[in-house]
This record gives sequence, structure tokens and C-alpha cells, in this order.
Amino acid sequence: MSVQAWLALPVSAVLLVANPATASDTSGASGHAEDASPAASLTAREKLFLDSVSASRIGDYIEELTARPTFPGSSYSPEVAAKTAAMFRAWGWNTRVETYEIPFPRPAERAVELLSAVPIAARLEEPSVPGDPYSEQDDDYLEPYFIYGPDGDVTAPAIYVNFGLRADYAQLERLGQSVAGKIVVIRSGGMWRGGKVELAAEHGAVGVLIYSDPKEDGYFRGDTYPEGGWRSADGVQRGSILYGKYPGDPLTPGVAAVRGAARLDRSDPASTIARIPAMPISYGDAQPILAAMTGAVAPIAWRGSLPITYRSGPTADPVHLKIRYDWKRITIRNIVAELRGTDYAAEKVVRGNHRDGWIFGAHDPHSGHAAMLEEARVLGKFYRDGWRPKRTIVYASWDAEEQGVIGSTEFVEQHLADLTRSAVAYINTDGVSPGALQAYGAASLADFVNQLAQLVKDPQSGVPVAERVTLANRMSLYDAPASGGTGTSAKTAAAVDGEGRILLAAPGYFSDHHSFVSHAGVATLNLGFGGAESNLGAYHTRYDDFAWFKRFGDRDFKYGRASAQINGLAVMRLADAGLLPMDFSATAVSVRSEFAALKALLAQERGEIIRQNELVTADAYRILSDEAQPRVAPSLREVPELDLARLEAGVGAVEAAAARFAVRRSSVNPARLSGTRVAKVNRALIAVERAYLRPDGLPGRRFYRNELFSPGRLWDTVPFPAIGDQLLDGQWGAARAQVEPAVRTLEAIAARIDDAATALD
Amino acid sequence: MSVQAWLALPVSAVLLVANPATASDTSGASGHAEDASPAASLTAREKLFLDSVSASRIGDYIEELTARPTFPGSSYSPEVAAKTAAMFRAWGWNTRVETYEIPFPRPAERAVELLSAVPIAARLEEPSVPGDPYSEQDDDYLEPYFIYGPDGDVTAPAIYVNFGLRADYAQLERLGQSVAGKIVVIRSGGMWRGGKVELAAEHGAVGVLIYSDPKEDGYFRGDTYPEGGWRSADGVQRGSILYGKYPGDPLTPGVAAVRGAARLDRSDPASTIARIPAMPISYGDAQPILAAMTGAVAPIAWRGSLPITYRSGPTADPVHLKIRYDWKRITIRNIVAELRGTDYAAEKVVRGNHRDGWIFGAHDPHSGHAAMLEEARVLGKFYRDGWRPKRTIVYASWDAEEQGVIGSTEFVEQHLADLTRSAVAYINTDGVSPGALQAYGAASLADFVNQLAQLVKDPQSGVPVAERVTLANRMSLYDAPASGGTGTSAKTAAAVDGEGRILLAAPGYFSDHHSFVSHAGVATLNLGFGGAESNLGAYHTRYDDFAWFKRFGDRDFKYGRASAQINGLAVMRLADAGLLPMDFSATAVSVRSEFAALKALLAQERGEIIRQNELVTADAYRILSDEAQPRVAPSLREVPELDLARLEAGVGAVEAAAARFAVRRSSVNPARLSGTRVAKVNRALIAVERAYLRPDGLPGRRFYRNELFSPGRLWDTVPFPAIGDQLLDGQWGAARAQVEPAVRTLEAIAARIDDAATALD
Repeated sequence: MSVQAWLALPVSAVLLVANPATASDTSGASGHAEDASPAASLTAREKLFLDSVSASRIGDYIEELTARPTFPGSSYSPEVAAKTAAMFRAWGWNTRVETYEIPFPRPAERAVELLSAVPIAARLEEPSVPGDPYSEQDDDYLEPYFIYGPDGDVTAPAIYVNFGLRADYAQLERLGQSVAGKIVVIRSGGMWRGGKVELAAEHGAVGVLIYSDPKEDGYFRGDTYPEGGWRSADGVQRGSILYGKYPGDPLTPGVAAVRGAARLDRSDPASTIARIPAMPISYGDAQPILAAMTGAVAPIAWRGSLPITYRSGPTADPVHLKIRYDWKRITIRNIVAELRGTDYAAEKVVRGNHRDGWIFGAHDPHSGHAAMLEEARVLGKFYRDGWRPKRTIVYASWDAEEQGVIGSTEFVEQHLADLTRSAVAYINTDGVSPGALQAYGAASLADFVNQLAQLVKDPQSGVPVAERVTLANRMSLYDAPASGGTGTSAKTAAAVDGEGRILLAAPGYFSDHHSFVSHAGVATLNLGFGGAESNLGAYHTRYDDFAWFKRFGDRDFKYGRASAQINGLAVMRLADAGLLPMDFSATAVSVRSEFAALKALLAQERGEIIRQNELVTADAYRILSDEAQPRVAPSLREVPELDLARLEAGVGAVEAAAARFAVRRSSVNPARLSGTRVAKVNRALIAVERAYLRPDGLPGRRFYRNELFSPGRLWDTVPFPAIGDQLLDGQWGAARAQVEPAVRTLEAIAARIDDAATALD
Repeated sequence: MSVQAWLALPVSAVLLVANPATASDTSGASGHAEDASPAASLTAREKLFLDSVSASRIGDYIEELTARPTFPGSSYSPEVAAKTAAMFRAWGWNTRVETYEIPFPRPAERAVELLSAVPIAARLEEPSVPGDPYSEQDDDYLEPYFIYGPDGDVTAPAIYVNFGLRADYAQLERLGQSVAGKIVVIRSGGMWRGGKVELAAEHGAVGVLIYSDPKEDGYFRGDTYPEGGWRSADGVQRGSILYGKYPGDPLTPGVAAVRGAARLDRSDPASTIARIPAMPISYGDAQPILAAMTGAVAPIAWRGSLPITYRSGPTADPVHLKIRYDWKRITIRNIVAELRGTDYAAEKVVRGNHRDGWIFGAHDPHSGHAAMLEEARVLGKFYRDGWRPKRTIVYASWDAEEQGVIGSTEFVEQHLADLTRSAVAYINTDGVSPGALQAYGAASLADFVNQLAQLVKDPQSGVPVAERVTLANRMSLYDAPASGGTGTSAKTAAAVDGEGRILLAAPGYFSDHHSFVSHAGVATLNLGFGGAESNLGAYHTRYDDFAWFKRFGDRDFKYGRASAQINGLAVMRLADAGLLPMDFSATAVSVRSEFAALKALLAQERGEIIRQNELVTADAYRILSDEAQPRVAPSLREVPELDLARLEAGVGAVEAAAARFAVRRSSVNPARLSGTRVAKVNRALIAVERAYLRPDGLPGRRFYRNELFSPGRLWDTVPFPAIGDQLLDGQWGAARAQVEPAVRTLEAIAARIDDAATALD
């Protein structure tokens, strides 16, 4: 998954409240303390690190490790794992390979055809293209398909439901249409594709086709491959469609998929295997089906950039969809490498990036993976030269991320007890593109990230990446008005507030930090580069290869180097810190902002019910219905109430605790604290993040325990998901029942922040 | 022009403040007075009128008068005029034909070609289509072209500037491009095409091509002709490109173009003939040129719905544009018909609609013209049966509207003294489409319109048109979020406020009311039907014929009938009123709203200068510039000041006078006023609208005298145009100098409202 998903996630931004120049300046005094503050300037070793990471080496790693397809089960995959492990070992890391066994069904039969008078069969293939020798490798080519759907063979009229979001189904109903018994055609974007398939199943669809519209992902964005880097009419977005009740291996919920683990049957409804058959198709294959839709012209927001009139459908002629899988089981391999710490060896700073691509994966994930390797090389050299970090550093090269963050999830499940005790933070990247800093993560590290962003330079302009991201935000607001005509936000993932302070986006669930944050309650960071105009046209196609990457990706690997610099610096500082850099001012803002988002969601849902009831009562659907724009009145709905006052009091408790901590923290000079005291404070700081977890997990989804930062049930971004999911599903009674448990979580967070403040005394 | 232009105009809405049930109820008492109030119920004659207008007759008029092309100078045009005059005469109207002589250049030579290795010549033709016999009439077929541009023959690279608005040129500059010496390609929409050509000339372009993008005007909207009614790849939007220093005949500014009138030479820069050659092209012809653009991908908001990557350009290969006109002079014919009034015969209620189409003009204008004829038939019958209105009714069938509201403007110029003395109101329509009520006009008549809208029924649903427009507004907000992906507003032209009161849009300049409001200061109304989804795909093509109209227009002429009902009712009531129905509560709101718009424009212009200066100073353009998104810093600009306090005081004076009038009006029972007193009050009411005029006209544009409701110099919608135009052009000193004259106008309006209040005593 990963990069494309980033763009679809709303920026639930977390304010970085502290001035980067003074945030870790323990004096509490203002003034120009940049040079005096240890956090705001580089140590000699840090400087050496930044100078040592090499762009050309990053390019070499990518080229070597993506010479052939890298997906789990490919013939090259074990070699890629072995080469990676060998590098870590050669660089002085204590390295192990951890394996799991997972189902990796590959397609045995695939068909999509429009059964018109002259049937039109979808091509379902990505041809080789001139000038790209990788695209001519037919060994281990993985045909376009979705993994973790059921076998199926259905024939039914097709119907178009835009992005396939909840609101799209509501709109379809008001147009007098239903997907029941039909094959739905959905365009990519806006939500996890597994959530789309699940929603379609819930609405009675019998099959799903998901295509990439050229508006989001094709010629509307730029020239298509091979002339340009954007998705051509043949490019297909492969992907996992597991229904996200839990991440990881679909058959071993909550436990590691080691040999001999208890496994669900794949037909067990408790598994995450999707319920109806689905296939991804290119826009070339989608066009004849969309052009065959009858009925009213689709709502304006549903219309993409194909040269057709978009209609909601259905098609007069049926569509035939067939998919049969081989249901094979394979071995996946995580490479886990450690540099042991000294003073606090039991505390671990974990850094990871996945290694599996959908085919070659030059950009996704090897652009990020190679940068991580380069960090490891230099840190290993430092270690061999005698450097000993205070904490243990763990680097992980994950497998099978694309199928559902499987490698990292099985790791978290296997090592949960140890991570709960020892993990200070988990730092992830994934693909890297030229552009502005992209920063997601735990609000408690917002301050820390802002400092890093002052120290690492933007490769293109030479200014600190903090400055570039600030300017990129201001410029994008200027250049791309909201009426810009596309759903793509021009904002970068790290936004900037009115006073020029960088904002950090909420952690999200789009890559291997998923289980660390939502299951283990570990503070996570995702630091990388890119932006709204990053070229992601090869995403999950066979064309995401080194030839494509050299022309349209991070061509000279400079942003890979910047990624290695900022992530390596984060690792070094977290591993070597005395007092850990967590701060809770931004945490308070973040919790308040999640609450505001929940309140807005509530107001929106209630407002929509009220407004729709009014329109129904006024007979508006009949009065305004005509041939060009048929309308069908929905049923009247009860206007529900939900009292969030208690939850808001919980938010207030977190804010008050954060304020108390800030006062205490500013009165303490860490240099004067004893080692024992520092260790005690650090344990308290780490415990704050764990307090986000509900011990028994969210209702019906035990795996997900993070009260604030677990995905919604469709892997969408939902505020206070235990409450928000119920609101979105219209389960108001169930939503009400979730308020008190959420209040208790907020109170626990406040109490742990108070513990940390107390420990400082 | 007309219908398409409606969509491009922002809704500068005017609040209808009064409750329709009580507004003209002179008792001032509340309660359920609908049945008791004469204004809120129909008289027997009014009821007979509404029952008498016939949809099928409207269809017959359209079919007969558009049997052949109707443009001025066509062979059928004199016959259409004669038939129209004969109908008025047969119906009992005192009818005259007024003629003018104007230049009507037709193209002698046209060429547009992309001079690539294999040159690509634009087709520049609209072929006949199966099933549409009108499209096979080749006699009097007027080739696609723009009227009132200069002859020209230029060869230069082409460059794309989106809609060709001021902001688009600023954006182009920040992309490091200039149109100087190039041929600009502009898409239709957002502004008068003559304004686009003028702006292009001001920026140094040597030629202009304007095309209709399928996003606004083609398959994005719906199926194209002949399968559907929307613009096909061959459809071209003809039109006038005169530069709007004044409307009407380009060679006789300020005076009627009668035989022997003094005329400018067409090369005289004082004329409105455009300065650089221009041609309209279809999207079929535009596509190869747009696809040949090099350079950076165009900003998101610039990208349309062609299946290409939009770039700003320029083209590597040059484009050749050639246009040569025959520069012939022709005769145009207004038909002016009167029913003489009794008590106030010197006061005139003027009703008009144009009769000339670009080719056939079945929708534009005959759908509206035929409805007006049907009003005239029934009113004529009433008159023959003995009815005598208190005031004189004038019906006008205008010629040469499409070339620059010429017929109506020459009429206003010729009869200015009489209109100034006698015109109570001018009521216009133009094309009619199925949909919600579209209501533009003088705020003083807002109350009056709301009453009418309660009395006329929506043909489709049977509810009052006021109810439909209210629901259409609420529904469109619900169904079409701002992020809907198109620039087309889902709002109808008559919006609705939070309390369900209909809002009236500002008069606008898009049809024959233009000179009445902006030059003569007559209260205007534009009442018709349509909406954002109205099918206007045949606009200014040869396909706007009866065959198209019967399939995709107002198929059974029911909305034509509704238009005749509401406009006829307006005419009857204005002609038969004792005390005229003007009220100034909405006027106060309207003046305040124009002031707010000016303040917002000022804030926007200043904000943009400040913001851009900050970005330049921060070196943002260099830091963020890359190959994919080149950026060039604009120059630093002085941040100007403009004090609007005096103008706001003027607005306050109007508000205070309106409040005094309301108090006075509510204490008076018109039935008890003497005839002399009523006549005196009415003269005062009429004088209020004249007070909007600056005696000497706006700076540099003497024709335009209306301080609030004159078009901007590009025929765009600009608040307080004497000030707003200078702001938009960056002429801050000149803007400052225009504040005091505008204050004096507001004071005059307030004084005239006070006169009306005094007259009531």
C-alpha cells in the first residue's frame, strides 16, 4: 500500500507548539539560543553522519535489489532478503531473519468482459514498453489482481458508484439506484480499497471493479508512461483488499504466523478475506464499461477525466467477472538487525521500511528501503569505530507490506511483550519522492521533528527542509485554490500554521507503523519526502522499476539521501538522548483536534439527517425530479442525540496535565538530573503513549487498541474510532455506549502525563 | 450573447426582504392576509391571462420564425421581422418598425492551422447531423467566427491561458511564461469573450483562439449532439468580441445608428472593434493544438476534460491564424408595439426580447421571444375586448442582440429623453430552459417579484415557482459540494436566504436590459427559467434549431408558457398599479452588498500583493522551483491603501432613507391617496432609479452612467465599477479619485428615496 494511500488521507494535523530554537532549551529563557542549545545544533558525530550518507549508494541498493521482481513468493525475493541481511551483517549489525508462513494466493484465472452484442474483454495486462527493459521480464511477472478476495464467477449489470464511499451510496439511493445484485465500478482514491469492497458487499453488490481514473492517476496529472511517468491506459493498481478487522496475515489474528500457529480457514467469516470477488482494472479497460452506463448523468463530483459522459448506470448489458486463485502458502522474511545500547540497553529505538514491491518496487518501497540501508551502513561504521548509543537500535526490513502490512504486524504480534516494555519509538518511511518534508506521527514527538527539520537541508534549494515545507504550504494555498478541480489536496502532509510553525499529521495507517501505533501503543514517526505533485503514476504497476525511477522518481537519489539524513538523525538522537525529547503540548492540541473532528462528524451526520428530513417533508424530491435529474426521496430518519460533554472533560484533563508537565519540564535542567531519575522519567514518558490503548481493544475489533489512532473499520481515518465508526454506521446507541470507555482512556493519558511530571520532581 | 453568459456571472444577490404575503398589503398588519391582499391573489383578469397563454402557440411561433437562419443580414431576417410586426398588428398593437444601419462583417477567409511537420488544419465547420434537417440548410449558414475583430494573418507559437482572466495571466507570469508575441488559446467561460480578447491584446498577444472545453460545454456535461443535446467535438461558440467601452453599434457611440449618423472609422481606436484577430474553435479543433503545448503541466484549475495532459505551453511549432472580413453594412429592425395607457399614459412599462439568433436561434432567443409574443397576443386580446391599462405598455422585439445588444442599445440611444421621463421598468427575458425561476433585476422590485413567484406555478410539479426555486437552492447545496470538480455553480440565479426568502441577482449585462440599466437608469427585471444543469450545448451553434429544441430544450414549451405567465403578470401589474410597487428595503441590502463586494475585492487585491511580496522576500519561488513545477518570482509591489469610510457613510445614508421610506409607506393606505398624490409619489419612485446615474458617466466610459450597475471595462461583474475597475487594474490613485463621486451618487439615491417618502405625506 503506502504512498498512494498517503494522498487519500486527510491531514489531521497536530500542532508543533514549541519554537524549534528553544524547545529543548531547558533554560526556559527566550532569545537567540540556537547555537547554545544542543538540540538546535549538530554534534560532530551528527554532522559526520549527515555528510557520510551517500546518494549514489542509495541508487546502487535500489538497482541491485530491484533487478528482478521482489514480491513475496517471487524467485528473487529470498535473494533480496539474503542480500539485505548480508549487508547489515557486513556493516556490523547483529542480524537475524524472522520468517512467517502466510497465504499468498495468485490468480489462476481472471476475466472481465462487457457482454455487449460484440463482447468487449478487458485486457487485464500491462504490456512491456519501449526503453524499459524491466518491463520485458516475463519471469515472475505478477498479473494485475487483488489479493485476499474470494474466488468468484459472476455476471450482472455494472453500476458506477464514484469512489465507493458511504456518501456515494447515499447519493446513489437518492438517484433511485441500488447496487444490490450488481457489479460495482469504483474509482481508486479516497479510501482503502478493502474498505471499498466491504462497503460494496454490505450494500449487496456481487462483484467489484476498481479502476484508476486519469483524473487522479493518469493523463490529467501529466504525460503517461513511457513518454512521461504517469499511469498509462494500461497501468493497473494492484493491491490487497483484506477487510481491516485486523492487519497482517488474514488467517492468524492476534498471533504471529509462525509455522504451526493456529490458523483460520480462509472461508471463516472471522478472517479478513473479502466477501465478494473483485478485480483492479486500468482506465483503458474501464472506459468501455463506463461508456456503456445508462441512466442519469452522474453527479458532477463523480465525473472523472475520461472523454465520456459519466453516468451512474447500470449498464444495459451485463458484465462478467471471474477470478480464481491458487491459494498457495509462502514464506515471508523480516530482516531484524540490532546495535546494542549501553546505559539503557533495554530501551529500543525501532526503525523500519518494507522491502517487498508489488512487482519490482523501485519506488515503493526501495526508494525508502535503500535510504534506510544507507543509514544502517553509516551507523554500523560508527559502531565499528567505537560509537555506542545509550539505547539499543533496531533496524527492520519488512516483507509482505503490500498484502496488508503483514511482515511488520507479525513482528509486533510476536514481540508484543518486549515492544510494550522497551519500544521508545518506531520510525517508518516507505517510498520517497522529490518534494517537501512529509511528517506524520505522535504529537509527543512534534517538537523533536521540528528540530530535525531545521538541521537537514532540502537537496534542491539548500534551505532547511522546515523552511521548504513552510513555503510549500504557503505557496500551495496561493497557487491551488479549493476550487482547483481535483480531489487531490495541494497541502503537504506536514502543514504549517499561521505563525509558520510546522504541523505534524496524525500517524495514519498506510504503512508498517500501522500495528506499532494501533496495537502496541508505540510512538511512531513517518518521515519522508514528496508532495501532491509527486509522480506516483507507476504505483503498484510493473512499471515501478529502476528504469521508471531513474526518469521520473528521485532521479539522482538526493531525496533518498535527505530521507536517510533526517531519519538517521532521529534514530541517533532518540538512541543517545539522556532525557527523552517527548513533550505534551502538541499532544494536548492533538487530542483537542481529534475531539473537534468527532464533534464535526457528529454535527455533519445530524445536520445531514435534519436537512434530508426537511427536504423529504417539503416534497423536494418529487418537485425537483425530472428526466435529466431523477431523484428519489430517502426515508425519514430519527434525529439522534449524542452527548460529548464527558468526553470533552476528558480532553480538558489531558490539556491540564500537559500544561502541568510543561511547567515542570521548563523548571528542570536535565543535565543536573541523576541517571536514576532520568531513567525513571523516561519510563514515565514512554508509558504515556501506551495509555492511548484500551486494554480490551475497540468494540468488535480486539486487535485495535489505540483509542485515538486506530483506523476506522474500513481503514479510513475516523476520529475516536470506537465512537466515530458507530456514528458513520448510524449506530447511535452503540456510539453512546463508547463514550465512557473513551473518557477513561483520556483520563489514563492525563494520569500518565502527570506521572511523568511527578517523576521530574 | 445571453444564456451562456448567465452562468458565468457571479450571483451578486439582492435580498427580498418583505414577506410576499404582506409586502403590498398596505395595512401593515400581520396575520394571514394572503386572500385579502390584492397583491397576493389574482384578479379575474390576471387569472384569465394565466389561463390564456398557450404552450402550443409558443411552439408554433418558434417553429415558424426559426424555419431558416434569423441573424441580421440573413435572407430570412426581414421576413421574420415582417411576420413579427404583422402578429403584433393583428393582435391590436400600435406597431412600428425602427431600423438602423450597422456594420455586419462576415468572414471572407478563415484559417487556423498547427504548422507541425505534417500541418494540422482546423476544420472550422459544423457539419450537418443525421436527424436534424435544419443542419442541412446550407443557404445562409454563417460560418463559425467572431464578429467585430480586425482582419489579421499571424503565425506564432500558441500558449494556453486557461479562461484568460486577469488572475490567469498573473499565474502564467509566475510560471515564467508570457503571451507576448504569441497566439493565446483560451477556454470559454468566466468572462465576456470580448474582455478576453482585450486582455490578451493588453498582454501583447498577437492573436486569440477561444474554444469550448468539454468540461464546461461538452461530454463532461452530458451526451453530445445528436445522441444528446450537449456540444459535440464540432460545435463552435460564435459570438461578438467587441471591447465593451460601450455596447451597441461599434461605430456610433452614444447615438443611434440611423441612416446618416456620424460614424467612426472601424480602425478608429475609439471604436469597440477588437485590437487583435481572433477565432472561435471547437474542442475537436483545439485538441491537437493543446496537445502540442510544451512546458510544465498546467495548474490543476486550468485542466479541462480533454483526454490530454494540459500544459501552459508554448507550442514548439507555430500556429497560423488568418481571418479576413467583408465589412458589409446591413439594416437591422426593431419591432416596437404599444398599447396606450389611460390615467398615466406618459408612463411606460417596456418589455423586450431579442429576435435574432446566431443561426436559427430556436432556444436563443426564440424560446423567450415566442413566450413574449404569446403575452402580447393575450394582452392584445384583452385590449381589443376593452381592457385599458393605466400606463402605456411597450413591447419590443430586438434585432442584433448577439452582436453586442445592438438593437436595444440603438433604441435606448434614440429614445433616451423619452425613456428618462417615462420608463417605469424594462422587463427582459432571452432563452428559456426547463428549470427553476431565474430572477435578476432592480432591488426595488424584489418584493414585487416574490409576489409574482407565489402566483405562477412550476409546470412540472404544480407548486409555485417560488417554492421550486427555494427547494432547488437547498437541494443543490446538498447535492453539489463546493469541491464538485467544476467551475459551474450549482446555484440558481435566484438564490434563497436562510429563512426561505428568495434572493434576486443583480441585473447583470448579458442581454437587452444592458443599456436600460447602465445608460438610462431604468429599473430592470430579467425573469426566466433554467438552472445550472440546463442543456445549453447548442449555444451559438448552427444546431440551436427547432429539431434540437424539440429534443433537448423546453420540449413541450411549458416553461415558455410559465415565462409568459410571470412576465405578462409583471407587465399587467406594473401597467395597472395605482401606487407603483417599488420598495427600498432590498435596495438598502443591495447597496450594502455591493459595498461589501468592493471591500472584499480591496482586501483580496491587497492580500494578494502582501502575500506575494512575502513569498518573493522569502525566496520561495527559487526554493520551490523545479523541473516539474518551474516558478518565477514576480516583482515586489507596493502595498496600497484605499479608504472606503466615506463610501460606507454613503451606504449608511441609503439605508437610513430606505428605513424612513418603509415607515412612511406602512402608515399610508394607497386607496385613500388622491390621484394627484399617487402620480406625484410615482414620479418620485421612478426618479430613485435614475439617481444611480452619474451625469457625466464613469471615467473614460461616458456611455456607462450607472454607479452600481454598469459592467466593468471587460464586461465583467465589478462592484462600484468606477472604483473596482481601477483596483483590478492596479490603478490605486485613480481608484482613490473615484470614491468621492461615488459617495455623491449614494447621497443622491438617498435623497431621492427621501423625496418619495416625503411625497407620501
